[in-house]
Amino acid sequence: MNQFMNTISSINPADKDAVQRAKKHIDNLTKPLGSLGKLEEIAAKFSGITGEVFNKVSKRNIIVMCSDNGICEEGVSSADQIITKVMTEGIPEMKTGVGVLASFANAELTVVDVGVKGKINNPKVINRKVNEGTANMAKGPAMTREEAIKAIEVGIEITDKLCSEGCDLFGTGEMGIGNTSTSAAVIASLLGVDIEELVGKGVGLTEEQFKNKKNVLKKALKINNPNKEDVIDVISKVGGFDIAGMCGCFLSAAKNKKPIVIDGVISCAAALCAYILKPECKDYMFTSHKSDEKAVNYVFNYIRLEPILYLDMRLGEGSGCPLAFNVIEAALYVVNNMATFNDIGIGEESKDKLVDIREEN
Amino acid sequence: MNQFMNTISSINPADKDAVQRAKKHIDNLTKPLGSLGKLEEIAAKFSGITGEVFNKVSKRNIIVMCSDNGICEEGVSSADQIITKVMTEGIPEMKTGVGVLASFANAELTVVDVGVKGKINNPKVINRKVNEGTANMAKGPAMTREEAIKAIEVGIEITDKLCSEGCDLFGTGEMGIGNTSTSAAVIASLLGVDIEELVGKGVGLTEEQFKNKKNVLKKALKINNPNKEDVIDVISKVGGFDIAGMCGCFLSAAKNKKPIVIDGVISCAAALCAYILKPECKDYMFTSHKSDEKAVNYVFNYIRLEPILYLDMRLGEGSGCPLAFNVIEAALYVVNNMATFNDIGIGEESKDKLVDIREEN
Repeated sequence: MNQFMNTISSINPADKDAVQRAKKHIDNLTKPLGSLGKLEEIAAKFSGITGEVFNKVSKRNIIVMCSDNGICEEGVSSADQIITKVMTEGIPEMKTGVGVLASFANAELTVVDVGVKGKINNPKVINRKVNEGTANMAKGPAMTREEAIKAIEVGIEITDKLCSEGCDLFGTGEMGIGNTSTSAAVIASLLGVDIEELVGKGVGLTEEQFKNKKNVLKKALKINNPNKEDVIDVISKVGGFDIAGMCGCFLSAAKNKKPIVIDGVISCAAALCAYILKPECKDYMFTSHKSDEKAVNYVFNYIRLEPILYLDMRLGEGSGCPLAFNVIEAALYVVNNMATFNDIGIGEESKDKLVDIREEN
Repeated sequence: MNQFMNTISSINPADKDAVQRAKKHIDNLTKPLGSLGKLEEIAAKFSGITGEVFNKVSKRNIIVMCSDNGICEEGVSSADQIITKVMTEGIPEMKTGVGVLASFANAELTVVDVGVKGKINNPKVINRKVNEGTANMAKGPAMTREEAIKAIEVGIEITDKLCSEGCDLFGTGEMGIGNTSTSAAVIASLLGVDIEELVGKGVGLTEEQFKNKKNVLKKALKINNPNKEDVIDVISKVGGFDIAGMCGCFLSAAKNKKPIVIDGVISCAAALCAYILKPECKDYMFTSHKSDEKAVNYVFNYIRLEPILYLDMRLGEGSGCPLAFNVIEAALYVVNNMATFNDIGIGEESKDKLVDIREEN
């Protein structure tokens, strides 16, 4: 609890002066003003995080929070919870989606059991189990308030440690059957949006199963009646240990002034929790891909962020993050290596002319 | 002319059987069916090009076609044409947008003077000047039919040579003040769309200048009355040497069975020309970023392609291509390295179960 409160109070906004210095440098690069679009925004935002105009990433890490959800009892997913455990054990071997893409982007994985049901048989998974999965939120709270904070603190501790080890670019991922349901419930509660608007049909669900998923979520929200003004109340009643843990990652990254990338809908739900707990967290968040889950649009609109990759991905695990890492690092590389007008001996007057011309090309 | 006709007739569709074999392998990777979205499509398309399920890129090259446009006389751009020459000389030094991003993606540049006005003072630029810029298309044809074919053949020869040197992933870029105007005119002509629908305002243009740009383009289309059934007629009357040259790149890449990436609106115009000349070219084309130029949407809808990166970039030069290279190579890396259900000992029955579950997560 202390760690949670201390982290919240230790989060400060990014360095606005460094953002301005970066923008000034970027505007002096040999290109029309703003013509590198979001690459410019990404680089300037990164400067706000580090306080430096020129930046380079040295150690990338994607934190994968794994846990089970009691809501699975209600048939919101069409099969066995055991898959959470199987995949949790498999992810550190770097052969699933996030592992392969992380290798491609030269990123490491930190796989955390924050609440998987059953013993995990892979020593590479960090055991920080808060409980053996959550309770069935269609019948009552998913977890206690203490458990929610404990799971957030797992995320904080894991991320704090990685920061102390020199990690300077984070991704967020998860594994947990049933977690698109908990994410929709959390987002609907916090944003006060009708759950009907947020639940995705998913590829595997029949019309009847989809109807059931919506009814179960409505029931869970009605029975628990989470207080939208209280993030911890929402997480504990209709969330999951994975969402809580990832929320802790976002809080710790902001506290430690490190950039952190949002993946799909579960990661979005966690980012939203962190943002509401401390809006300054936004300064440290980067987006990755556009998810098909409708709930994601509500979160991005609320936080005012936009995805950069349109790949129709819906794998989860954090698999969008390594692709975003490449774009972020390309943006930093531009700032570090592109010639300025000064470099090529073009003064203020000619520069304006060049900019004008190139703008219309 | 012979080279042009021979190239067209040597273009064959991609290997559909290899696409199916790749899809079968991808469907057996440890993830829900289709959950890696466009990464799966990209990898399967790549397999169709090479004929192999497993692929790796070894030599990336972005071909930058540079030329001047006579239409600049009409004030469609707010300043001097000399910038085409200045930038053409600068691009091979790898310090402008495309050069820096190419370095980041481990790609080389091939900068071609296909029609810049004035002598280029950089031996790294390949001199294949068809003419000293085009004529003013508001007063008559931009070039002769022979010049259009010659410029296309420059693109074919350059790309053929790079293929023979082992290049196996191409990007397309350009430099030429006034070329968003020529691109809009070419696209409007070929697709039979009102030019008003296609012309972007650009950042630097005042309302009055924008109105002028539209009027000039209307005048050019009226005076030249290009035959939409004849791509060469369209290019020669309202196109540019850069568009023609890039069109040749797309044709040669298809002939040589090599993947080639579309950049912004000028590259899109060239891709459209190649596609209409030989629809099979599409099998070899990959997209990069979403351009703000409205004309691009018409082309993508027509060819039925979708951009993968949303970065609000509008620099040109081919700068979107290296970012797309990274995504394409990530897709290939997934196919080469992700575990299959067979690898982890999950048979058909359990696989279906896993897939079902993961689809809803």
